[in-house]
Amino acid sequence: VSIPFDDRGLLLGDGLFETVLGVDGRLVWLDAHLERLEKGCATLGLPAPDRAAATRLMGEALAGVQAPRAAVRLTLTCGSGGRGLDRPVAPAPRLFATAAPSARPEAPARLVTAAVRRNETSPASRLKTLSYLDNVLAREAAREAGADEALMLNTRGEAACAAAANIFWVDRGRLVTPAIACGALPGIMRAAVVAAARGLGLEVIEAHAPPQALAGSEGVFLTNSLIGVRPVAWLDGRDLPQSPMVERLASALD
Amino acid sequence: VSIPFDDRGLLLGDGLFETVLGVDGRLVWLDAHLERLEKGCATLGLPAPDRAAATRLMGEALAGVQAPRAAVRLTLTCGSGGRGLDRPVAPAPRLFATAAPSARPEAPARLVTAAVRRNETSPASRLKTLSYLDNVLAREAAREAGADEALMLNTRGEAACAAAANIFWVDRGRLVTPAIACGALPGIMRAAVVAAARGLGLEVIEAHAPPQALAGSEGVFLTNSLIGVRPVAWLDGRDLPQSPMVERLASALD
Repeated sequence: VSIPFDDRGLLLGDGLFETVLGVDGRLVWLDAHLERLEKGCATLGLPAPDRAAATRLMGEALAGVQAPRAAVRLTLTCGSGGRGLDRPVAPAPRLFATAAPSARPEAPARLVTAAVRRNETSPASRLKTLSYLDNVLAREAAREAGADEALMLNTRGEAACAAAANIFWVDRGRLVTPAIACGALPGIMRAAVVAAARGLGLEVIEAHAPPQALAGSEGVFLTNSLIGVRPVAWLDGRDLPQSPMVERLASALD
Repeated sequence: VSIPFDDRGLLLGDGLFETVLGVDGRLVWLDAHLERLEKGCATLGLPAPDRAAATRLMGEALAGVQAPRAAVRLTLTCGSGGRGLDRPVAPAPRLFATAAPSARPEAPARLVTAAVRRNETSPASRLKTLSYLDNVLAREAAREAGADEALMLNTRGEAACAAAANIFWVDRGRLVTPAIACGALPGIMRAAVVAAARGLGLEVIEAHAPPQALAGSEGVFLTNSLIGVRPVAWLDGRDLPQSPMVERLASALD
């Protein structure tokens, strides 16, 4: 239950994680999470973990939680290395899982636009990495401003995501979400929402859009594996309209 | 000698480090390093470590190295926290030190410009944080291209720094280095070089400059606490001139 001082995940943020929803002892969307983790390993040049070992670790962590809903976090570090930035020739990743109760938020989210931008020039902007300090800072600034999540723009000023969620909005009956190239995580719930919306016959657009698109939309919502679909009540102090489409999508996914 | 699974430095890269040169049992520029760490803690909203405790940890780590020159790394994590991005109300940082032999590189550096940009919109771009994955990726790409360090531009395309060093160049007899606002670390050796240059009567400019300024300069060099002043031999496959000023500054600092 601990990590040595020479681990590159600890020293340099060199590694990845997944956060999986556990419901009544079951790991939701498990295959999609493991697949994304494997793709992330390929991007970072790390060996992918053994699926059976990862599943076992998560199952053990989940079994220790006395709650119907849990957040199960699988963490993969690059493993031990020598001094400095250079990776060892053959990295030997470490894998561990932790879990905690995770209640679904009851209230809609309140967003504040973060000063720190999402660095879409980095592959890390499309991965859940152990280098998450920008997200921590964005979230913290949002909370200090009386909100509970941050809207993150990328360095070109386009809407990218929230600090720990993907973002969607409704524009003239169409569903819009930032393109992955904006610096957005290819969220498991993001993909599920896109599929559900198309299943309902809705048009879905992956866009490079300014933040004004959200302020002027028919409704904004967040998605991630833990919260599912969560409406956004206000952005930077201004109330946002509530679109019936958000409720419709949430119901389609339940 | 290990860190628990719930440490936010490990899970989110929420923390800072310093790399201090140890020579013959002495920690070089120790006060400047501790001062920078304290400023970083203030920026991130973390309690600063006790100076005596930090110095003792580094001294113990240095004492274990059987080499005249050592790299002593002091790592401060945000400490344990609950699930997710939100920090605990009163973070209790962890502090530890490690050390390894560190020979001065003999050869000049070869640089390749990194595709991943330095995110100057983030306070983290001016700190040595545990979220260093972008630097790891930049270094790795440089090595794959046959170089040994990366030139990092910021998101506006201005020269910012190397993956693990500040960068300087000589322009018509003046010394130029990217402004901190470009996303450069306020390096201890960077400050020492600026002071030494001014002591020698040289003009020093902190600039927002395109990378072409380096390619067209009279000489380029890197600085950090471990390497001191290191000339750059080539950039993106093109030989760079060697300025006598680099040798002069290196001598002034020895």
